[in-house]
Amino acid sequence: MNREEVLLLIHRVYNFNPGPATLPLPVLEKAREELLDYRGTGMSVMEISHRSSDFEEIITSAEASFLELAGLNNRDYRVLFLQGGASLQFMMVPYNFLPDGKTADYIETGIFAEKAQKEASRIGKTHIAASTKDTGYRSIPRQKDLSFSPDPAYVHLTTNNTIYGTQWKYIPDCGDVPLVADMSSDILSREIDLTKFSLFYAGAQKNLGPAGVTAVVIRKSMLERVPENIPNIFSYKVHAESGSLYNTPPCFPIYILQLVMEWLKDQGGLKAIEILNEKKALLIYEAIDRSENFYRGHAQKECRSTMNITFRLPDEKMEKLFLEEAAKEGLMGLKGHRSVGGIRASIYNAMPLEGCETLAQFMEDFCNKHKA
Amino acid sequence: MNREEVLLLIHRVYNFNPGPATLPLPVLEKAREELLDYRGTGMSVMEISHRSSDFEEIITSAEASFLELAGLNNRDYRVLFLQGGASLQFMMVPYNFLPDGKTADYIETGIFAEKAQKEASRIGKTHIAASTKDTGYRSIPRQKDLSFSPDPAYVHLTTNNTIYGTQWKYIPDCGDVPLVADMSSDILSREIDLTKFSLFYAGAQKNLGPAGVTAVVIRKSMLERVPENIPNIFSYKVHAESGSLYNTPPCFPIYILQLVMEWLKDQGGLKAIEILNEKKALLIYEAIDRSENFYRGHAQKECRSTMNITFRLPDEKMEKLFLEEAAKEGLMGLKGHRSVGGIRASIYNAMPLEGCETLAQFMEDFCNKHKA
Repeated sequence: MNREEVLLLIHRVYNFNPGPATLPLPVLEKAREELLDYRGTGMSVMEISHRSSDFEEIITSAEASFLELAGLNNRDYRVLFLQGGASLQFMMVPYNFLPDGKTADYIETGIFAEKAQKEASRIGKTHIAASTKDTGYRSIPRQKDLSFSPDPAYVHLTTNNTIYGTQWKYIPDCGDVPLVADMSSDILSREIDLTKFSLFYAGAQKNLGPAGVTAVVIRKSMLERVPENIPNIFSYKVHAESGSLYNTPPCFPIYILQLVMEWLKDQGGLKAIEILNEKKALLIYEAIDRSENFYRGHAQKECRSTMNITFRLPDEKMEKLFLEEAAKEGLMGLKGHRSVGGIRASIYNAMPLEGCETLAQFMEDFCNKHKA
Repeated sequence: MNREEVLLLIHRVYNFNPGPATLPLPVLEKAREELLDYRGTGMSVMEISHRSSDFEEIITSAEASFLELAGLNNRDYRVLFLQGGASLQFMMVPYNFLPDGKTADYIETGIFAEKAQKEASRIGKTHIAASTKDTGYRSIPRQKDLSFSPDPAYVHLTTNNTIYGTQWKYIPDCGDVPLVADMSSDILSREIDLTKFSLFYAGAQKNLGPAGVTAVVIRKSMLERVPENIPNIFSYKVHAESGSLYNTPPCFPIYILQLVMEWLKDQGGLKAIEILNEKKALLIYEAIDRSENFYRGHAQKECRSTMNITFRLPDEKMEKLFLEEAAKEGLMGLKGHRSVGGIRASIYNAMPLEGCETLAQFMEDFCNKHKA
């Protein structure tokens, strides 16, 4: 069978899950093709040694492609591929960079930003430089709302808030203080000046690959600040010096991530994907705005995320019906997070334009049918 | 094509890698079959939500099958599926169970046992209850060689030492003190009384599945000892209460692990696999012993592992030739660890008997050809 014939036999839906999320179909097809024999080795990529030249090539290529896409150079930056998700980074960041007597500043824009601050507060002193909690995390603080502590060890922010559908549209100015970001839900989705960050990280399961690997991008000069006496497994320096092979890495997730990087380069890189992501998001935001309050967006307009689109319907019964009818059309994973309710469409890089067109059309039809 | 026809087209070797290691072929075939559409969901298992009923079924079934195979009941034990490998457990064990003022006892039987003790010593006080380092880690201490501290918080051991090819053949008696074990390289490979352990853990990439997931089996009563003030991400209690879903788990590795558990049950469980593993190991040890010192085993005979078989040849040149000629026969991954040198055959559960027969025959032929 040729590719078209195989695909005709495969049942696929539009998957709006917030993470784990949809992956590019060509990536899955490639993984499928190589699953029992990785490029003539006679082994699955799950069975090859993490110290073999085959795996070395995968992880080296993943790092190089990541930096290329991010517009960063390998003289100044390293990409580490670690385990434990963003949640382990919540601990590793202060373990490495929050010494006794110093304070780390956190900007609260959602539950995960809160979690990052709370875990850090078990390691050292933290300060909340701004919070939009009072208004249901519908917005992102403006530069003038940020109130930093006198001499922070670093400033931590969350660039995109999956649950609320908000996204930073500017990079805050915090002078010479290292800027650290959790970019789990919008990493490599748009062209921004990543050199402004000293460290950023992302669980892979939204924009980079499957769950089980976390990308940590660190400016090399930061490695000099890592204390020698912290446990090896938490030390960015140890992981950097061993090329992410201090212990056995999550090989298969890294392999898929590498294929996703290749796919993203084939799409034309970050500028091209940003244009597409904006087009995709606009289709759905227009369906919200045209509905004259049948759909009510959660995020303030100027903070709307291009990755996660959150909205409510007139009542919960109608939301339930929306989810049921959407599922019949093959539009899956649209249930909002319990803390916001309603609907959430997660449209990461791998969601095709057709998925958003189909959803926007469905939203318009549903509105016309059910609007009182 | 039917299964036999497909397999004829697939190049597969005998893979003696120490981990990541060979996986059961039926597991890989199942994963391949479901890779683009997991059981009618229209999504890959990498794309489904970790909070979906589909994934719930995978992780619940993985835990139940694991306990069933291990001969443990779910009233007293939990299995957690975490990230970070055994190396993160080296930290989590003392974080949870080594309070200030107490000492934890470690038994040194190899580099990984050393690492476990060293990482713990950054958290609290440790004591080395026995060590076989002086004799090149060729043996396992006897019960009478163990010298425990007065009132240890726990005793930690490594049941199988991958690098040296040694394995504990008894479970040490340490009275009421909780016994904790790193079982990364022999977990679920033999029938032993696992109720003697309060906690045991294993990186999956040897006997359980692919790299990227770590199984931690914990007696429920131990959870009451976990301090409330440790970071959530390190707390066994937090992970147990959330059913390993405190943060996004490594879904795909857990899925493969679950398939491996099903496969292991199909093989007849631990008693059956133990008999097979002993038969497999014996074939290779006999080839060593029959060679009249052409092959020299590293481990003392009474401590020989059924999982990793380590041996040297007369010189390094001969070892190089051995590896080259073995590779020509499709016998891969046989290079020993740099600290022992020579040859290492890792023959975990998923290595078929035919692989060991082929290797033993190759060893005999090679010996006959090259013995002076």
